[in-house]
Amino acid sequence: MNRSFNSISAEQLARVLGPWSHSGAIYEDLASAIRHVITDGRLQPDTRVPAERVLARHLGVSRNSVAAAYDLLREEGYLHSRRGAGSYVSLPTRAGTPRVVTWAADGTPAEIDFALAALPAPEPLFTEAMVGTAAELAQHTGQTGYDLTGVPSLRKAIADRYTLRGLPTRPEEIMVTNGAQQSWALLLRLLSGNGDRVLMESPGHPTVHNAVRLAGGRPVSVSVGPAGWDVDMIRTTLQRARPVLGYLMPDFQNPTGHVMPAAARRAVAVAAREAGTRLVVEDTVAELGIGPGLLPAPLAAYGTPARVITIGSMSKVCWGGLRVGWIRTTASMIARLARVRESMDAGNPIVQQFMTVRLLAGYDGLIVARRRLLAERLRVLAGALRDQLPAWSFTEPPGGLVLWARLDRPVSTRLARAAADHGVRVPAGPRFGLGGTFENYLRVPFVQPPETLVEGVRRLAQAERDLGGRDPGDAPGDGPGDGAKPSRLALHSV
Amino acid sequence: MNRSFNSISAEQLARVLGPWSHSGAIYEDLASAIRHVITDGRLQPDTRVPAERVLARHLGVSRNSVAAAYDLLREEGYLHSRRGAGSYVSLPTRAGTPRVVTWAADGTPAEIDFALAALPAPEPLFTEAMVGTAAELAQHTGQTGYDLTGVPSLRKAIADRYTLRGLPTRPEEIMVTNGAQQSWALLLRLLSGNGDRVLMESPGHPTVHNAVRLAGGRPVSVSVGPAGWDVDMIRTTLQRARPVLGYLMPDFQNPTGHVMPAAARRAVAVAAREAGTRLVVEDTVAELGIGPGLLPAPLAAYGTPARVITIGSMSKVCWGGLRVGWIRTTASMIARLARVRESMDAGNPIVQQFMTVRLLAGYDGLIVARRRLLAERLRVLAGALRDQLPAWSFTEPPGGLVLWARLDRPVSTRLARAAADHGVRVPAGPRFGLGGTFENYLRVPFVQPPETLVEGVRRLAQAERDLGGRDPGDAPGDGPGDGAKPSRLALHSV
Repeated sequence: MNRSFNSISAEQLARVLGPWSHSGAIYEDLASAIRHVITDGRLQPDTRVPAERVLARHLGVSRNSVAAAYDLLREEGYLHSRRGAGSYVSLPTRAGTPRVVTWAADGTPAEIDFALAALPAPEPLFTEAMVGTAAELAQHTGQTGYDLTGVPSLRKAIADRYTLRGLPTRPEEIMVTNGAQQSWALLLRLLSGNGDRVLMESPGHPTVHNAVRLAGGRPVSVSVGPAGWDVDMIRTTLQRARPVLGYLMPDFQNPTGHVMPAAARRAVAVAAREAGTRLVVEDTVAELGIGPGLLPAPLAAYGTPARVITIGSMSKVCWGGLRVGWIRTTASMIARLARVRESMDAGNPIVQQFMTVRLLAGYDGLIVARRRLLAERLRVLAGALRDQLPAWSFTEPPGGLVLWARLDRPVSTRLARAAADHGVRVPAGPRFGLGGTFENYLRVPFVQPPETLVEGVRRLAQAERDLGGRDPGDAPGDGPGDGAKPSRLALHSV
Repeated sequence: MNRSFNSISAEQLARVLGPWSHSGAIYEDLASAIRHVITDGRLQPDTRVPAERVLARHLGVSRNSVAAAYDLLREEGYLHSRRGAGSYVSLPTRAGTPRVVTWAADGTPAEIDFALAALPAPEPLFTEAMVGTAAELAQHTGQTGYDLTGVPSLRKAIADRYTLRGLPTRPEEIMVTNGAQQSWALLLRLLSGNGDRVLMESPGHPTVHNAVRLAGGRPVSVSVGPAGWDVDMIRTTLQRARPVLGYLMPDFQNPTGHVMPAAARRAVAVAAREAGTRLVVEDTVAELGIGPGLLPAPLAAYGTPARVITIGSMSKVCWGGLRVGWIRTTASMIARLARVRESMDAGNPIVQQFMTVRLLAGYDGLIVARRRLLAERLRVLAGALRDQLPAWSFTEPPGGLVLWARLDRPVSTRLARAAADHGVRVPAGPRFGLGGTFENYLRVPFVQPPETLVEGVRRLAQAERDLGGRDPGDAPGDGPGDGAKPSRLALHSV
């Protein structure tokens, strides 16, 4: 009935779980760790888990512990058995059981959400745009309303903005979409096939990585380290792997905050052209610089719109609930994308496109306000981190919405689980990884009001203390707890 | 760079082209016919076309004619050559060249559009819903706006409507989407894999068929004939092919207008369950009955929400430009769909969801008005067809937006091309086919104002006369024209 099932080996599962022993009974800790990687999306439904005996051997615990953990998960609805075919990941369905936590959690929110890097809508601007649009709407509703590429006035407004930013663009080179994520999914659909290689940054955003997997692509990672991109490595990877597509975020990269220097942009564009790789450049936060510095020219300035495609959206500067994004490429590519899109979602809603035209008319003022707000919140977050978690280290990003903090030990997964006990939802560092594990990192957005940021960091510090001083490399199941608060992880409330 | 290329054999191409000879020079007619199947989507970009010599032999024309046709298409941008690798379909990119005609044409509209079966927005209702939403909007914009499954008030309103229609539904069994097309694409993504069989109606809607091909599925067709569905054939097909999914539109099927009887619904639901096939039921026009008859209970009443999934939208009753659709299934399936969706488009816009809650509050009144309007327009269309094209035959559909007319000879493709000369955009019958060709059919929507319907039919009749009395089975390239208007097909203006 379903697509073919995956399985995960004991070794792989152990790696995904990370150091899972907490301070409760072994079977409860193990169940909790497995539940966590299911709810945060690293272990997908319908994946076959290892046999009890095999996993027990691999984790160095008794088979009874694994059996009890599996039983608990089965009871909760996170596993189900198929006769003679082992146990498979599932999701609870009974009323009252925990909701699935997707990236954009739509269930009961945590008290403090450090997962979504997104601001509320700018009011009264947003409501004003809606009122203004309502007044003119009847001009536009006499048509059938089917629109695959965007209404002309919005395509022009977006093109003009790129031209203003030094990237001359014609309206027919802009396709309006339902957001940057859809832009990426459409490009993957059109330009990559099953098994094709796609180059991506690691760390990078999980939904960007997942879109490649969903499209049947094979991710090839290039790392973004403490010093940013390694151009030589990117060149070598391009030459060797010859990916069909490469996804880059050169302006305030998510999550590291890095800005790619002009020389690197040029070099990467040249290397990609030589390797036959089309680049897709996300610039959703490019206009959210916080410091005084100027950004280098957009990466698309170093290539043609067919070879260096830009995707952007209103979601980060304005509001994610608007769902307006775009693709900047050639008119002929847009025609091809429209054909693909027709069978995917039949096109753009009309109302918010006209709202967006209005919002873009006042965009410069909005950007100034957003930058000021983010600069202040970054200052608050950085201060709170230095104060409450002095052993962590970070560089304040020059723009964007998130800070990539380096922990003093590789406990990010355990920390994220402990933070949930304190009502803080924060994704563990490994969720941003593709290959690398990033157990030493945590991404903290600075989008919440100052008092929430301070309280959130206070709770993170408590959670950090809950982990105790135990070396996370200890074998799971070792000795008694270390005095840390005993904890049945309450992920149910996330 | 691109996904692997397809090729089309001379035999396949000849079949797709249908009887292509018109009345001009052979190479122009051939180029025109090929251009037509490219612009209407039956011949996809990057498909390798047959070698000149092979196609010439197959069509019984000179190699020079094929070479001249290919040259013309190359010049126009519809073909390009790869050194040593033949000629491939492409799309024109130069300014001033024709735009791609997607199903929901967003280019220069034809004078009369008989392609889209969609009504303008109901005003002043629609603007009123927007004004009302603007007044309350600030209550909702304080969040991040990321929403994968729908705002609670809309999920409840949609669930309540199903309950009212005799299908008890809880809000958590409804997922809001960007339209029924996206609902289908999401379900395909989650529930079918590469090479899986998917049962579909033929004739059916081309974007529904295309979504299956895009998802890598293998379409399996069941025909909807003059008497409707053949339940025995559906049962046999299910047993033999065991498709993972089946797509059905039992209420005013598009394009035939048929309604599946209650006994057939039950039988199909049982047969699908036995075959392990999940059914996806589109009910976008179920509330647009025109006659006095009552519909049987929804097909979903004969199965569980996990096995018989319903997809619907606001697009047909209200407006396509709203882009609000939904999926009715289990809460656990919705959780899985949300995970898939997160990497596809990051979710629903917020504004029109609240607009939709308001529109649903007055839905009964809207439906009464729509039914009255459609009944009147169907009457006008049917009258005009009987008057102007008395050799055609049809049954007036008991609901929906389209009439499926049977022509007196298999000329639908030629007729659609000739209609373009008269400023009428209408898809040829074969576009609705999956296997069957339907050269004997034409779908005509009755959504336009009465005077447009009458004028459109008048032009269709002219186009029909343009084809002349020549037997369409004649070999192409035969003798001189038959007195019909000579025509370089002006598809450019479509």
